[in-house]
Amino acid sequence: MMAQLSLSDAYNRASYPVAGHGPRNVAVLKEALASVEDSLAADLYGQGAVIVEFQRKMADYLGKPAAVFFPSGTMAQQIALRIWCDRSGQRRVAYHPLCHLEIHEQHGMHELHHLEPVLLGDAERLIALDDLDAMPEGVGVVLIELPQREIGGELPDWDSLVALTDWCRSRDIRVHLDGARLYECLPYYQKSAAEVAGLFDTVYISFYKGVGGVAGAILAGPEDFMDEAAVWKRRHGGDLISLYPYVVAANYYFDRRINRMTEYWAGARELAARFNQLDGVRTRPERPVTNMFHVHFNRPARAVEQLLAAVAEETGVGLISRVMARGESSASAEVSIGDQYAKVPKERLDMAFQRLEDKLRHA
Amino acid sequence: MMAQLSLSDAYNRASYPVAGHGPRNVAVLKEALASVEDSLAADLYGQGAVIVEFQRKMADYLGKPAAVFFPSGTMAQQIALRIWCDRSGQRRVAYHPLCHLEIHEQHGMHELHHLEPVLLGDAERLIALDDLDAMPEGVGVVLIELPQREIGGELPDWDSLVALTDWCRSRDIRVHLDGARLYECLPYYQKSAAEVAGLFDTVYISFYKGVGGVAGAILAGPEDFMDEAAVWKRRHGGDLISLYPYVVAANYYFDRRINRMTEYWAGARELAARFNQLDGVRTRPERPVTNMFHVHFNRPARAVEQLLAAVAEETGVGLISRVMARGESSASAEVSIGDQYAKVPKERLDMAFQRLEDKLRHA
Repeated sequence: MMAQLSLSDAYNRASYPVAGHGPRNVAVLKEALASVEDSLAADLYGQGAVIVEFQRKMADYLGKPAAVFFPSGTMAQQIALRIWCDRSGQRRVAYHPLCHLEIHEQHGMHELHHLEPVLLGDAERLIALDDLDAMPEGVGVVLIELPQREIGGELPDWDSLVALTDWCRSRDIRVHLDGARLYECLPYYQKSAAEVAGLFDTVYISFYKGVGGVAGAILAGPEDFMDEAAVWKRRHGGDLISLYPYVVAANYYFDRRINRMTEYWAGARELAARFNQLDGVRTRPERPVTNMFHVHFNRPARAVEQLLAAVAEETGVGLISRVMARGESSASAEVSIGDQYAKVPKERLDMAFQRLEDKLRHA
Repeated sequence: MMAQLSLSDAYNRASYPVAGHGPRNVAVLKEALASVEDSLAADLYGQGAVIVEFQRKMADYLGKPAAVFFPSGTMAQQIALRIWCDRSGQRRVAYHPLCHLEIHEQHGMHELHHLEPVLLGDAERLIALDDLDAMPEGVGVVLIELPQREIGGELPDWDSLVALTDWCRSRDIRVHLDGARLYECLPYYQKSAAEVAGLFDTVYISFYKGVGGVAGAILAGPEDFMDEAAVWKRRHGGDLISLYPYVVAANYYFDRRINRMTEYWAGARELAARFNQLDGVRTRPERPVTNMFHVHFNRPARAVEQLLAAVAEETGVGLISRVMARGESSASAEVSIGDQYAKVPKERLDMAFQRLEDKLRHA
């Protein structure tokens, strides 16, 4: 038997990867830059048409008075939470136990801003109204992430979301939206970005998830708040002399993909249904509410990787690129649907799932 | 008489700007990207050949074990100072009164890291050994900037620099190099970057000054120190999913310009000599030691702007793009020589200085 490819190599070689918008390579930026004139002036420390006009466009899109472009969501969100806490005189920030700030930022919020997290509810489910009722005193701002990425991209229904944000408002506690994947929720809610953002005091959105840009984020909120955020951006080292590489790409791919979210969602539902027909495999959510979902396998990660790599090699269809172990005998993977899904011939996809089903049965 | 153009407009329209490498526009990035394959994979949170190989190249160039690419020098330097202070158990950082951290960063070092500045010596001159002798207790790290930009780019001579760094070493105080313009000093010192960096524990260099990239910085130092710096980079929100737009441009323009610093320096000396022949005008340093210098005028800023705008309009030569008031009756400007200077025909330059001399005499 030949030495098997690693899953990521097999996925990268597959003719038909089902997830994402395509390879993350230099061509992504070159294509975006080709849409603007060579003579377009670089932004200069937050000034200049290229950044100012995009900030205006995003503020309008989100229905907020002002917006500032940041190199990263990590920076944008820490700053938003810091300002709300400073204004309230509190040092506690309440969020989901699997919030990005809690698990992916080396505790920058604490180390740099001396803010303390309050974890709301249970890691394995969405935040509920009861969790807010049980919240201790001293919280300056509540962060809600839509969708809740680390549990597969679940969403509270609209009434629950309104109830959560109303709860905060009625107690004069600020509420911030981690909208890294906000666009992807809009088809489910059947709301505009401004309607969702309208429930929140401030909102962050990202440009390299659903829209497939290179990097970068927007933070939007009240005018005076954003002026303060720009000062903190300078302090963090985020007020780069020029951010245009990210701004141009964000603008280009936003325009190109913002109206395709319904299609991506439909693809996610279709693909999830295929996974759920397999023995020992289930998706979370069972029926996706955005373009993303998680796939759970009741087998060890190593075994799942081998099966998926073999399917990719044999059929040319890359179903999953990376598997995470969940204990010794189960595993999970994240799938986000983008431009690529529509390019996969249905008969190839049928073949790939048939092959996966056979392998799961005989492995 | 026609309405006069603003100085910046007149400079931007001039056929022959004397300073810099050319317009900061999208063409700068497009040119750099054209040097790499479309299929070059994006870096991913600090991993991937595009960033790892450039970090290795810069570590070797600086003679340090390790290097990390940052989106900005502001971020890189705050982090370096924080780590040295944490390691020494001190909270004080000593630097020149016109250090970038003191005047351009909204006191991020204090607001985010709770470090306290100790200002060494006088704002109008270089740091001297006496200033170190007078330094209070509790300093965890001394920062030295080469050249001292805000006073026109002065440099201590080599023996003085060795004495300053020896002073720190002998007292077990760490010494960090703000080398935003390190390349530009090397012809004067007749040393390699590694020889200069070898006097320091850590060093930061920038890619959009002398080499004319888009943005970005390298921090270099011991292996374990840089591992820690990478954690802080994540905390600051600087560990972007992809930094390749800046890395590719930094690498491209570094290779293209790193060997031209002697030529830029010669241009600066020549141009400064022309300014110094004018009545009521002097440069600092009188004889530049790098590619940069300041020009001081004994007239109000508004008057200087009008003279320079008129010269640019009449001769097509942009001598200076921006003037800063220094009190009511004097003004100054910064000039940094790059690729553009060699493109200015000498007879045009003669004409521009002749015209400026006439105007100064008759204004």
